[in-house]
Amino acid sequence: MVTSNISNPMSSLIEVHMPNFAIIGSGAMGSAVAKRLIDHGATVLTYLEGRSQRTIARAKAAGMVPVDRQELTKAELILSIIPPSEAIKVADLVADISSGMPAPPPFVDLNAIAPKTMQALAARFEGSGVEVLDGAIIGGPPVPGKSGPTIYISGDTAERSRLLEDCGLQIRRLDGPLGAASALKMCYAGINKGFIGLSTAMLLAASRSGAAESLKAELSQSLPDVGRKLSRSIPDMYPKAYRWVAEMQEIADFLGEDDPATTIFRGMADVFARMADDVEGSRVLVGQLDEILARPDIDR
Amino acid sequence: MVTSNISNPMSSLIEVHMPNFAIIGSGAMGSAVAKRLIDHGATVLTYLEGRSQRTIARAKAAGMVPVDRQELTKAELILSIIPPSEAIKVADLVADISSGMPAPPPFVDLNAIAPKTMQALAARFEGSGVEVLDGAIIGGPPVPGKSGPTIYISGDTAERSRLLEDCGLQIRRLDGPLGAASALKMCYAGINKGFIGLSTAMLLAASRSGAAESLKAELSQSLPDVGRKLSRSIPDMYPKAYRWVAEMQEIADFLGEDDPATTIFRGMADVFARMADDVEGSRVLVGQLDEILARPDIDR
Repeated sequence: MVTSNISNPMSSLIEVHMPNFAIIGSGAMGSAVAKRLIDHGATVLTYLEGRSQRTIARAKAAGMVPVDRQELTKAELILSIIPPSEAIKVADLVADISSGMPAPPPFVDLNAIAPKTMQALAARFEGSGVEVLDGAIIGGPPVPGKSGPTIYISGDTAERSRLLEDCGLQIRRLDGPLGAASALKMCYAGINKGFIGLSTAMLLAASRSGAAESLKAELSQSLPDVGRKLSRSIPDMYPKAYRWVAEMQEIADFLGEDDPATTIFRGMADVFARMADDVEGSRVLVGQLDEILARPDIDR
Repeated sequence: MVTSNISNPMSSLIEVHMPNFAIIGSGAMGSAVAKRLIDHGATVLTYLEGRSQRTIARAKAAGMVPVDRQELTKAELILSIIPPSEAIKVADLVADISSGMPAPPPFVDLNAIAPKTMQALAARFEGSGVEVLDGAIIGGPPVPGKSGPTIYISGDTAERSRLLEDCGLQIRRLDGPLGAASALKMCYAGINKGFIGLSTAMLLAASRSGAAESLKAELSQSLPDVGRKLSRSIPDMYPKAYRWVAEMQEIADFLGEDDPATTIFRGMADVFARMADDVEGSRVLVGQLDEILARPDIDR
């Protein structure tokens, strides 16, 4: 625990707690969570070796402090906020740097992974003394003046996440065991991102079958909310499509092979993979989608 | 063309056109469409041989006139409004009874079938002199006092569908070729019914993974419209699930094997097949869904 202002005789009466966090991952979400914590007086360490110039710039702009990997363990909590495909790799790194420490900091996985992946991840820490918490972020990156997103935490019997709450994050502790937050995230993302994948596929089909204009007119008349939602959320998806591929695969794993809906999410992963290729490549599909979405009928 | 009131000297000045339709299919949609036409003065013939008592009762309640199959050709337009899996069978029946007629009535397929299925269906009439129109119904069955559903018609160069419009139905003729209305229906149903299938699967997953309560709370907070929509549309789906199986397969066929989204709709067909079995059988899944949907947070 780090306390500050001890040299100031006034503030020694009100001992101000200034926690140290480490966040591995400084993407749009990781850096915005860091900024929220920093704005509330915290210090946020991060590890940037091998990251892109853009990521490094974003981390610095948020006020994150780059350190070497071992120094991450000086934090009171280590958070992982990365694409789901990297969750286990990051856990391995944390298990590695924490090994042999008498009192390593707790580790919170905040990624969109299946409960089983979460359990496999926690197993990497067995016998290490690291307390592992299961977290899930629902909602977009924190924005000044808004309270969201909501961060769900399960397995937090010692209320380690209170530190995050004290620094401006909206936390909900779930009673369920480790994996409960991940299960919630899977279900929510399945509905929310699944809908975006489904609609993307159908708008592209409308575009190539000549039904784009009539579909647009019918949506704006009979499902105006859907039309409005799509014209925001489909373009928002373009830069994230690559990340959603692994997330859809996690949802498929979560559902399990006995559930026929598993097939839905395997297909959904392929839809986002195709979008991700297009976004980085020819942008032919992006053009088709934009053409439908930009039509004034569903653009407001 | 049938005219009425000719014996009345007053009305002979205003020659009132009272068209005859035939509707094959007197399910919830078919009988409600019939009632709308009948309420506007039309006569609606139907063919009920081999149908269930319930179907027969519904047809009679709507005021439809049961005739033998050959008499269906006395109508000015023959409409097919049946589950998509029966569309070709009904077309074969109509092709059969129309064969050899000098001027058989036009035939309108109003079912949720893929454009390719529509083309295969139209091919059954080649050389028969029967004009085939491609139609699609978007929206629920007609209800007194409301203008919907919208009936899209493509391939209607001779404006045969004007007869339907004159009898109270909301018609939109599409410029595209035969298949354009079916393509629109596939895209619209893919989004609308696809969302219901997706959400059904995720609510069931939440129920079995213990995330039902937190999902419900999160939906009601961050996506209140979705919560409200689901508590209406999922229970509405139960009795229709069996019909949606073939519709999802039609959407998969429409997308084609090159489109990764085809897999989504193959899975969706399985989700609805499982629901249909449950609805007719143990109703275990219905119970799980009702338990989540009945929770007050998302029930209004």
